[in-house]
Amino acid sequence: MRKPKGVFLPPLRAARPKRGDVYGALRDAVLQGVLSHGDRLPSTRKAAEDYGVSRGLMEEVFGQLADEGFFERSVGRGTFVAARVAPLEHSSRRERRRSANASRRGQVVAANAACREPENPRAFNAGTADIREFPWRLWWRLQNRAARELGHAAFGFADPRGLSNLREAIARYLAQFRGIRCTAKQVIIFNSAQQALMALAVLLLNRGDEVWIEDPCYLGARAAFRLADAIPVPVPVDKEGIHVMAGLSRAARARLAYVTPSHQYPTGVAVSLERRFELLEWVKRSNSWVIEDDYDGEFRYAGQPLSPLYALDTQARVFYLGTLSKSMFISLRLAYLLIPEEFVEPITNIRTQMDGFTPPLPQMTMALFMDEGHFSSHLRKMSAVYGAKRKTLVDGLAPMAELGWTWSSNPAGVHLLVMHSKGDYVRAVRKASKLDLALLSRYRVARARSDGLFLRFGALDVESLQAGAAELVKLCGNLDRKCSGEVVR
Amino acid sequence: MRKPKGVFLPPLRAARPKRGDVYGALRDAVLQGVLSHGDRLPSTRKAAEDYGVSRGLMEEVFGQLADEGFFERSVGRGTFVAARVAPLEHSSRRERRRSANASRRGQVVAANAACREPENPRAFNAGTADIREFPWRLWWRLQNRAARELGHAAFGFADPRGLSNLREAIARYLAQFRGIRCTAKQVIIFNSAQQALMALAVLLLNRGDEVWIEDPCYLGARAAFRLADAIPVPVPVDKEGIHVMAGLSRAARARLAYVTPSHQYPTGVAVSLERRFELLEWVKRSNSWVIEDDYDGEFRYAGQPLSPLYALDTQARVFYLGTLSKSMFISLRLAYLLIPEEFVEPITNIRTQMDGFTPPLPQMTMALFMDEGHFSSHLRKMSAVYGAKRKTLVDGLAPMAELGWTWSSNPAGVHLLVMHSKGDYVRAVRKASKLDLALLSRYRVARARSDGLFLRFGALDVESLQAGAAELVKLCGNLDRKCSGEVVR
Repeated sequence: MRKPKGVFLPPLRAARPKRGDVYGALRDAVLQGVLSHGDRLPSTRKAAEDYGVSRGLMEEVFGQLADEGFFERSVGRGTFVAARVAPLEHSSRRERRRSANASRRGQVVAANAACREPENPRAFNAGTADIREFPWRLWWRLQNRAARELGHAAFGFADPRGLSNLREAIARYLAQFRGIRCTAKQVIIFNSAQQALMALAVLLLNRGDEVWIEDPCYLGARAAFRLADAIPVPVPVDKEGIHVMAGLSRAARARLAYVTPSHQYPTGVAVSLERRFELLEWVKRSNSWVIEDDYDGEFRYAGQPLSPLYALDTQARVFYLGTLSKSMFISLRLAYLLIPEEFVEPITNIRTQMDGFTPPLPQMTMALFMDEGHFSSHLRKMSAVYGAKRKTLVDGLAPMAELGWTWSSNPAGVHLLVMHSKGDYVRAVRKASKLDLALLSRYRVARARSDGLFLRFGALDVESLQAGAAELVKLCGNLDRKCSGEVVR
Repeated sequence: MRKPKGVFLPPLRAARPKRGDVYGALRDAVLQGVLSHGDRLPSTRKAAEDYGVSRGLMEEVFGQLADEGFFERSVGRGTFVAARVAPLEHSSRRERRRSANASRRGQVVAANAACREPENPRAFNAGTADIREFPWRLWWRLQNRAARELGHAAFGFADPRGLSNLREAIARYLAQFRGIRCTAKQVIIFNSAQQALMALAVLLLNRGDEVWIEDPCYLGARAAFRLADAIPVPVPVDKEGIHVMAGLSRAARARLAYVTPSHQYPTGVAVSLERRFELLEWVKRSNSWVIEDDYDGEFRYAGQPLSPLYALDTQARVFYLGTLSKSMFISLRLAYLLIPEEFVEPITNIRTQMDGFTPPLPQMTMALFMDEGHFSSHLRKMSAVYGAKRKTLVDGLAPMAELGWTWSSNPAGVHLLVMHSKGDYVRAVRKASKLDLALLSRYRVARARSDGLFLRFGALDVESLQAGAAELVKLCGNLDRKCSGEVVR
């Protein structure tokens, strides 16, 4: 062994160094080869003096570096840089960029930002709940009570199927307000409808299985099926909802259909009873499944909410999916799935492999909110609020009807699709506008001449709604004249 | 059209029927064919009398059934069961069972219950945090403050990368306590390490790519990689941790290695510095990746926590994964991932497709808990608590050393693996015991003569620990004599 040489200690950047600073400087000096194999360190007394730190701290740092294998300490001889450390070369940023790529799959999935909500709600990207109307004082009070009732259970592991109080409250709600007969055992709690969709896709589908999705479709569902490696097959939506016969001719052997029957996303159409039965008949004959996503079935401003497919199904082949993000508030992170009892344990196992379980506190708070009748009052209130907003919007847009624009007459939901037969004109409107406008074609797979503006208004106040509608009307008028002019010339 | 006949109304079960009861009875009568195509309903006045409900309610119900297509109403003629309803036959339970199967993939994934935690912590299944020691009054106080500071943002959409306050607090914590240099921009918040693992697998791996996992291994990681359709390749763990050379000979072209270097799960071994460099060298040469899961790196009862692989890496190819479930409490549902900046947006997009975003309130509360120094005090306190528990357990088990049992000397973590060279004996102990004992072989892929008992003690109080250890010692003694006797005979 060559004669060990004494070394200078690496400089510290901090004026009053802490343990981490000293440790980091010494370790990095070894990693970068500034201190190398066999170098002898000064004594901890000397090093402590040099660095202006306590001897105890210096002892700790040398001890840790020895524990980790950077240093070797030998009684009587001193502390040395250990033999086995070979300094690594830092890669340049360019080298890293060249090699540091996500997988092909990762790149494809990562390119899809469709599930990210806009960070600042404004006209017309605001499809989330209007939280200004939420009774948040009541909610905090109930949350404190939930915390007391849960006690230590608020901090511990919770049933991955969901808290029984909430499952029972949801089963009662579904029976009372949606005409669905089920037991609490069939209700599974998820963080979001998106998470439930992924778990269902894993449960029901093999890789490469076909799934009917509506065209146009909720992009989150398409993403979840793709993530689970299934093949979404777009089935056209007309005035009666999903065109079952078209689905049969495109993919009769699909294993699953994903539908939004109360208020189709994004067109707003309600699926007719005839189509509902066609769908159930197909499901029965082909032993396939239906996911009924009733994402805003609570909000219907004329008549009562429509009867869910689930309630019409006699074969136990419909999975009913509901969310509390729309009816309560989006950061609640609670959704529920109604599932035949034989699938409860299987899907719970799948869910735990994706993301453990849902925390108990929001579940308990929500259960209290429902049990005490606040949920039904809140739904009534919000139905009135959103119904009025929808009316304000539709009234504001009225002049556009004369320019050939149309919209769904299904009086429901927190978004409105405004259609025009000339797609170029619609796209010109969007391009010229400073509003945040989404095009129907974004949600559509099949090409079509027509296009539409997808107006999400749930979280907007009346003033922004009116101003947004007025702006849109003005712009459409201007562009319409311009377009007509061009056509004439 | 045949002459419509008047019908009797279906009976109601409820003594004081509500809207839902009346609606449900009528709808079901149509669905079951009790009322059939062309049947004429009585007037709403008559029906209201028969059912003892208000006329307004009856109007609503008839209106809804007409809206939904069950009834047709014609002014002057009355209300009829609509033409298009063909009653569905109910399937029998047996028929359903025959056809209602999950997919092959679904069955395989659903059969894995390894990610479900035991519902009642007892000796020795209790690897979660000891929530009795958690300062929950302080936590509620901070949560109320977090709610005030967030205001309406507590209810709205939150950044899917995580709340910036928490990301900053975690970056500071990692710098100060784990010697990791990073910016808050590199920190991404997930609900759980499991969720982060799945997102990483999707980002980094193509279907069928190989991943090194430790053998024995944390089962949740294996499940996440399988769920993402990658192929886990078990690499043996010895006294220095993962055997990198064995990994090279088994799957040199693996894209990723998943390791738990501070305190291997479940063996408790710490990866030696030499092996750490071997691993980084392989990663550099093969352009592969490492996930460093530092799941309980905070709890080390002698010396300081070991320097993470992340801090040794010069190639930006190590992803550092930490969780707050172990150090805080399991229902907090917060974990964090440290990732090169170029991957922040891609993995965030992937995460939103799996499950939207993490709610803001627990994030803000956690950020306050960290910023005010409570986190470091809590870690210090819990290190003392768990260290004492570990000592109690090891002391209690001491007599087993004479029977040939051994355990890791790495003084860390909230579980202890107790090994014996005779696997049959270990399994006999487990079988005979009323304690909740997990076998090492459950976590192991390769066969081995030896086996071990995996004792998870974090959430146990001292009395249960002592009682459990005493019971185990007694049982091992009894069975050892019996086994020796059998061997002699």
